[in-house]
Amino acid sequence: MTATENIFGDLPVAAADEAVAALLSRPGLRIERIVSTGQASPPGFWYDQDWDEWVMVLSGAALLRIESEPEVRRLAAGDYLLIPAQCRHRVEWTDPAAATIWLAIHVAPDHCDG
Amino acid sequence: MTATENIFGDLPVAAADEAVAALLSRPGLRIERIVSTGQASPPGFWYDQDWDEWVMVLSGAALLRIESEPEVRRLAAGDYLLIPAQCRHRVEWTDPAAATIWLAIHVAPDHCDG
Repeated sequence: MTATENIFGDLPVAAADEAVAALLSRPGLRIERIVSTGQASPPGFWYDQDWDEWVMVLSGAALLRIESEPEVRRLAAGDYLLIPAQCRHRVEWTDPAAATIWLAIHVAPDHCDG
Repeated sequence: MTATENIFGDLPVAAADEAVAALLSRPGLRIERIVSTGQASPPGFWYDQDWDEWVMVLSGAALLRIESEPEVRRLAAGDYLLIPAQCRHRVEWTDPAAATIWLAIHVAPDHCDG
């Protein structure tokens, strides 16, 4: 039986890179905590994933761009969405003044067209 | 592409039962939001599930009893743990004064002994 842990605890110090920690890994499933401290996706970079990602911001704030959408999405605590596989997206901005904590659940895609 | 939603939004009014909403359902995976407003498990009742449950409290407070443990676990915002399949547990108490919002991720068990 695992101990209780806290998603807001044990934060990494601000660093050049986001801090990614796997909380649970299973075949076809990975739950991650991602801590951003002002990072954004590199210019011109798009995430283009083979898996669906259900993602929620738990603290902080971020701007998420979906390539197919005209407007950037502003995410704050409690905001969540499903980013389907092959939906190109990028993080335009995260709050540099406070940790932005994401819960990301990577799952096998609903439909495989590959 | 789904809209952004907020886990703290659209709360049900206090009712006799907990409010459970499926946020994502896939074979072997279900993500739920559970809103408790003072409910507890009935006396003598134990959850005894065939699936693993990764659960996090997002707001409010709860007391969770694991049958095999001498002490009850007090959970507050950000606390999470994995409750393995067949690990008997019950909710002893949730805060009657504020909504306790849980994120529950039900997944196929790591090992199947059945």
